[in-house]
Amino acid sequence: MNGAEKLQRTDGRRRDEIRPVNVVRPFIKYADGSVLMEMGDTKVICTASIEEKVPPFLRDKGKGWVTAEYAMLPRATHERTQREASRGKQGGRTLEIQRLVGRALRAVTDMSAMGERTIWIDCDVIQADGGTRTASITGAFIALADAFAKLIDQQKLKKIPLTDYLAAVSVGKVGGESMVDLCYEEDSMAEVDMNLVMTGQGRLVEVQGTAERGTFGKHELDDFMALGWDGIQRLVKMQKELVTV
Amino acid sequence: MNGAEKLQRTDGRRRDEIRPVNVVRPFIKYADGSVLMEMGDTKVICTASIEEKVPPFLRDKGKGWVTAEYAMLPRATHERTQREASRGKQGGRTLEIQRLVGRALRAVTDMSAMGERTIWIDCDVIQADGGTRTASITGAFIALADAFAKLIDQQKLKKIPLTDYLAAVSVGKVGGESMVDLCYEEDSMAEVDMNLVMTGQGRLVEVQGTAERGTFGKHELDDFMALGWDGIQRLVKMQKELVTV
Amino acid sequence: MNGAEKLQRTDGRRRDEIRPVNVVRPFIKYADGSVLMEMGDTKVICTASIEEKVPPFLRDKGKGWVTAEYAMLPRATHERTQREASRGKQGGRTLEIQRLVGRALRAVTDMSAMGERTIWIDCDVIQADGGTRTASITGAFIALADAFAKLIDQQKLKKIPLTDYLAAVSVGKVGGESMVDLCYEEDSMAEVDMNLVMTGQGRLVEVQGTAERGTFGKHELDDFMALGWDGIQRLVKMQKELVTV
Amino acid sequence: MNGAEKLQRTDGRRRDEIRPVNVVRPFIKYADGSVLMEMGDTKVICTASIEEKVPPFLRDKGKGWVTAEYAMLPRATHERTQREASRGKQGGRTLEIQRLVGRALRAVTDMSAMGERTIWIDCDVIQADGGTRTASITGAFIALADAFAKLIDQQKLKKIPLTDYLAAVSVGKVGGESMVDLCYEEDSMAEVDMNLVMTGQGRLVEVQGTAERGTFGKHELDDFMALGWDGIQRLVKMQKELVTV
Amino acid sequence: MNGAEKLQRTDGRRRDEIRPVNVVRPFIKYADGSVLMEMGDTKVICTASIEEKVPPFLRDKGKGWVTAEYAMLPRATHERTQREASRGKQGGRTLEIQRLVGRALRAVTDMSAMGERTIWIDCDVIQADGGTRTASITGAFIALADAFAKLIDQQKLKKIPLTDYLAAVSVGKVGGESMVDLCYEEDSMAEVDMNLVMTGQGRLVEVQGTAERGTFGKHELDDFMALGWDGIQRLVKMQKELVTV
Amino acid sequence: MNGAEKLQRTDGRRRDEIRPVNVVRPFIKYADGSVLMEMGDTKVICTASIEEKVPPFLRDKGKGWVTAEYAMLPRATHERTQREASRGKQGGRTLEIQRLVGRALRAVTDMSAMGERTIWIDCDVIQADGGTRTASITGAFIALADAFAKLIDQQKLKKIPLTDYLAAVSVGKVGGESMVDLCYEEDSMAEVDMNLVMTGQGRLVEVQGTAERGTFGKHELDDFMALGWDGIQRLVKMQKELVTV
Repeated sequence: MNGAEKLQRTDGRRRDEIRPVNVVRPFIKYADGSVLMEMGDTKVICTASIEEKVPPFLRDKGKGWVTAEYAMLPRATHERTQREASRGKQGGRTLEIQRLVGRALRAVTDMSAMGERTIWIDCDVIQADGGTRTASITGAFIALADAFAKLIDQQKLKKIPLTDYLAAVSVGKVGGESMVDLCYEEDSMAEVDMNLVMTGQGRLVEVQGTAERGTFGKHELDDFMALGWDGIQRLVKMQKELVTV
Repeated sequence: MNGAEKLQRTDGRRRDEIRPVNVVRPFIKYADGSVLMEMGDTKVICTASIEEKVPPFLRDKGKGWVTAEYAMLPRATHERTQREASRGKQGGRTLEIQRLVGRALRAVTDMSAMGERTIWIDCDVIQADGGTRTASITGAFIALADAFAKLIDQQKLKKIPLTDYLAAVSVGKVGGESMVDLCYEEDSMAEVDMNLVMTGQGRLVEVQGTAERGTFGKHELDDFMALGWDGIQRLVKMQKELVTV
Repeated sequence: MNGAEKLQRTDGRRRDEIRPVNVVRPFIKYADGSVLMEMGDTKVICTASIEEKVPPFLRDKGKGWVTAEYAMLPRATHERTQREASRGKQGGRTLEIQRLVGRALRAVTDMSAMGERTIWIDCDVIQADGGTRTASITGAFIALADAFAKLIDQQKLKKIPLTDYLAAVSVGKVGGESMVDLCYEEDSMAEVDMNLVMTGQGRLVEVQGTAERGTFGKHELDDFMALGWDGIQRLVKMQKELVTV
Repeated sequence: MNGAEKLQRTDGRRRDEIRPVNVVRPFIKYADGSVLMEMGDTKVICTASIEEKVPPFLRDKGKGWVTAEYAMLPRATHERTQREASRGKQGGRTLEIQRLVGRALRAVTDMSAMGERTIWIDCDVIQADGGTRTASITGAFIALADAFAKLIDQQKLKKIPLTDYLAAVSVGKVGGESMVDLCYEEDSMAEVDMNLVMTGQGRLVEVQGTAERGTFGKHELDDFMALGWDGIQRLVKMQKELVTV
Repeated sequence: MNGAEKLQRTDGRRRDEIRPVNVVRPFIKYADGSVLMEMGDTKVICTASIEEKVPPFLRDKGKGWVTAEYAMLPRATHERTQREASRGKQGGRTLEIQRLVGRALRAVTDMSAMGERTIWIDCDVIQADGGTRTASITGAFIALADAFAKLIDQQKLKKIPLTDYLAAVSVGKVGGESMVDLCYEEDSMAEVDMNLVMTGQGRLVEVQGTAERGTFGKHELDDFMALGWDGIQRLVKMQKELVTV
Repeated sequence: MNGAEKLQRTDGRRRDEIRPVNVVRPFIKYADGSVLMEMGDTKVICTASIEEKVPPFLRDKGKGWVTAEYAMLPRATHERTQREASRGKQGGRTLEIQRLVGRALRAVTDMSAMGERTIWIDCDVIQADGGTRTASITGAFIALADAFAKLIDQQKLKKIPLTDYLAAVSVGKVGGESMVDLCYEEDSMAEVDMNLVMTGQGRLVEVQGTAERGTFGKHELDDFMALGWDGIQRLVKMQKELVTV
């Protein structure tokens, strides 16, 4: 990661430095788990809701389910975006992100040990400065753990059915340089944009890398992995201070 | 308003007492005006967005437009509510409320003096403990005033095109007693539920009263008006400390 | 109500005079209750349909339900309006009106005494000259009473589960004058538009007043109430000649 | 057509006898042409609306367009049918019928002689006792002719751009017998159901025959044609008393 | 059918000559019956899928159901057509065709003898050169027979519950001449377009004739019937070589 | 890649062996480029359609656009899947895939050199045995190149505006072993599933790896990259025999 110290990023960060993280918890009094997850100016409300039934395809199998929904408030962005409810459908980007969030959380959940119930995760971005899907995953993990803790308090579960911590961060190539946790300005001029989801033990859960401008090679991929590993470890450290798995 | 002092409400308030009000402002860095409007445990993000064009029916008439959208996060409520974007349409309650908010704001806006532009108001309820539509109106007014102030700063307007302050409060009959600013628990057992929107000078803009259980008479209506007038004056007082019209 | 005699309205009526009322009944041979409700040139087909089941939220509670739908034929209006079925959704105005009609009828229905069944009310405006929602309520009440009478004939009910008569009328301020039962021409230039729903005993069920141009004070509200009370009493008198509650 | 005299139909008609026809005209005061078309207990409101523009594919070609929409009120039928606007889409049967009505009317309209405008035809069935699509066509022709007559009155057209009269009737095989103008009871037990649209001169415009129960041969087709020809001539005779083409 | 030999059609065929027919079978390895049906350059994939349940209206009646869906790939046509899935609804033409295909197949199916199951027919046009709905019916019949044969192989049925063969062809009038099996070029300039569905024994199942340009008389109808009968017999001959009913 | 020789896959392939590839070209006579792309039993029709205009956001910028749509026929799969057009919306998986296909193709297209036009890519899966998205990309590249060649033939372009070849393959971990080009059976039991898109020069364009069962480490990622690089080079070799870039 040589050179990381020299590059001056738009907000003065080093190449390998994630933005300040802040977690407000609990944040919504009715939810079974809830956080306001802030990474720099990106702010996401993540809630977990327990429903005592499972989707039809899982009925009577002794298993549970974790699913996620994602949305942005219309003015979370620089320009106002049309509300999906008034357009009458969720866009492709929304569906892609919420499928990712749900899949990632299920990768560390022992669905056989959570009972026949569904945990609904809602990630609502109230301010978007890049990295909303990774902040959603990192925050949603905490809300999910809190919902499980509530089930233990209610004596509906004996132990938290999570196999590891889970966090996510973006990496990318901007102006020829690899860097971690891109803000919106960096993201909008990135040559490569990659989202990494890893467990507390540093195992990969999701890798999603895209080059719309140009392409990238194996060495760059290795560099992204190293930067991402490091950033995610810091997020997991923060999670460990808040919840125990 | 005799008897207001004696009645003990679920949260200990007097019959004529509104809940604690808190305004965080600005709240979303990209919006042209934004507040987090809190009335007790009801919390609404209100943003104003300037768009430099008008809807087709107003084109080339030298007038502007103010319109509003309203939504609740899925877990703003006791039980999780299905997301309207995933259901594919906005419900009747949502459409009714956002039509009300837009209409109320237009009643104190001089559309001929705001230029050929639209102000979009977004009211997103993040926690719902009753009175979300009235909190939306009271908070949206501040966001709207801030958006107009921004246009003055940008020298696009000379004076704020608002003719008066505007605030709203609910009143109702619960257990046979009239009271102001119902929380969710009161609202869910009310015999009559009424929403009042008034200007700073105490003129009526909207009156919407409904009796689903039983009916009400003219004397009760008079009582509601007096309670509402009083509550709204306190909200306008708060608005006057924040914005100048 | 001084001055009511002097004002000359567009169709020559006095300020406190409702339009000629005509009810054709039954109007649709298959319906369980049906009227063609005419108030001046406003014509609405109101039907009641009995369904021997209730919505999910009421199942096995020993209660019934009354719900309403509203629509306008495309050419009920001066200009042809696009059909909601071809647009793929009902508009906000439609949803608002049908919620109002259903709520108003439920206010005088003893849902515990009507059995576990639903009465569907359909109000289809075939010609719209102002006051379509109030004509819908007044006409729907008759269709509803007829459907209950049919259930008595079929020995499924012992007495009509209605607690009172129910009718509605519009009031408003036009050119600075208060008046009752606005026709389209008056409605389109009104400063204030209010819809009142009352029982046969003159108790209020719904009050919905809106000022898009300007505002209104408490004295005007009182005036609207008096005009509305009078108009509704005439409609209830007509209802009493047709149905017994 | 031997045997037509002997068969006793459910309503006492002969095999070759159409139901009593009644036309109320004009029926809706705002429309440019309107009729209430009654064939027995089938009642359809047909309106014509002039719009001074054409669909995109016809722009600047010096031609006009005639298009139709069809719907049934929810309680036009024995059992209440769900409203298409609330289901969010028009069903296949509706689309099929409105495409048929529009196509049939265009077959007798000289689109080059009607100016660059669209005539919208709306057929709304208020009571359905079989044959609603054929009653729609027969009634819509009159409304269309009236709209053209209005354009002549307004000196926007010099002559009515219709090349012939146009009417429609159903024929079918019920209990092994061919018959004309089936009522709902006959239609619901028919082996073959056919709709015929013909001009005043007896030329065919549409033939739509369907056998869901069993099949039919060429001789039966010939029989249907003869019955249909006869029934349509009676409808055209009625049209000639009302409008001149 | 005199004169059929003289007319030179755009592709050199005689008036009474259908296009070369080719059937690839089976075509999709997962389907319970599948063909690629080619008539000239028109190519349709027809599949049959067995589902071991029936629609709600048939439940517990000891009967089965056959239903069909139809679609065209976006570039099956000269110009690319917008995908119905991205438009959010199936068009009127699509619904009309799939209703026709399902109805036609049911006319030769003994629904009482097929067990309480549904056969889903999917007709997907991959290249459209006229006559896609008739090719769909002719091909779908083979796929349906194959699905029934599979049920016999699985010992779920004892005999094929089809009462006859079934095929379809278009006929029409082009440039004043009657002809069979119109290709796209002929279809787009036809005065009359008619689709005929008949059984192996030459009985009619569906007749759908339309004149958008001009009209047609009884003699022409007779001519269409003769041409269609002949064309369909050739298609049935081909079917008899492939499947036994 | 040690061990690749020993593992016996369900269809007898080696770990590093892609399935037999077959390309039928052209496949649809109307399209501007079209292939039937077969990888084993996975079969996709890929067409390219030239439209001489660009989406609104690109208007008057001298640039072109490449966009893609993806769908599966209902019976492309083991069990019949409901048609998206009849459900009324495209699912999340569909939207995700078509966004991927479009993005990947744009990565090797010089949008500044293709003129102000859009190339629409349609990928319609007619038989799905795993790897439909990667087969879509590999096949769509050929259709795209053919559409550009057609523009050169029409003298609308001087050279093919593609900067490199482009192909895609899936890799994954099944039963603890890494392997390339998973068939459906392998895919449905994979611990890790990854899709790789690379250029002819072996540069990465997209990396999308997912672990729903368990997780994966950096060494496994390196292994996937090597297997994918190799598989894609074979596909590019095939492309080079067909089209020149």
